[in-house]
Amino acid sequence: LVGMEKEQSEYEEKQNKAEGLLQELRHLKIKVEELENERNQYEWKLKATKAEIAQLQEQLALKDAEIERLQSQLSRTSSYTEVA
Amino acid sequence: LVGMEKEQSEYEEKQNKAEGLLQELRHLKIKVEELENERNQYEWKLKATKAEIAQLQEQLALKDAEIERLQSQLSRTSSYTEVA
Repeated sequence: LVGMEKEQSEYEEKQNKAEGLLQELRHLKIKVEELENERNQYEWKLKATKAEIAQLQEQLALKDAEIERLQSQLSRTSSYTEVA
Repeated sequence: LVGMEKEQSEYEEKQNKAEGLLQELRHLKIKVEELENERNQYEWKLKATKAEIAQLQEQLALKDAEIERLQSQLSRTSSYTEVA
């Protein structure tokens, strides 16, 4: 009987081990899926922030042009007033 | 003998299956590690782009102030020239 019991417990041990492996496998598959979803969100956020940076840089260029325009206008009027 | 062979092939089948599971487990663990590294890089990149946005917004505010200053200076000089 002892042999049978030993065999039985060995079998159960193997079953538990296999069950543990399958459990870990399921857990890891879920983790991979979560991480891949997170990566897609990060990719999307990064694209959005890069677009915002491009837009801000464009606005800066427009402001610089406006400042230059105003400065040259000023230099014309002030030279005008000096002459007048 | 047939029983023995059957048992033997069943055993081998189980071994292959267990080996397959372990292989998949190792593969998934590597994948999780890669995805976690990638996530850290994304987090870092996102922080850097958000800092850049804040900096560009600050520059925009300064340019707006400069434009306002120039416009008021211009309105003073042009009203001055009209009076003169």
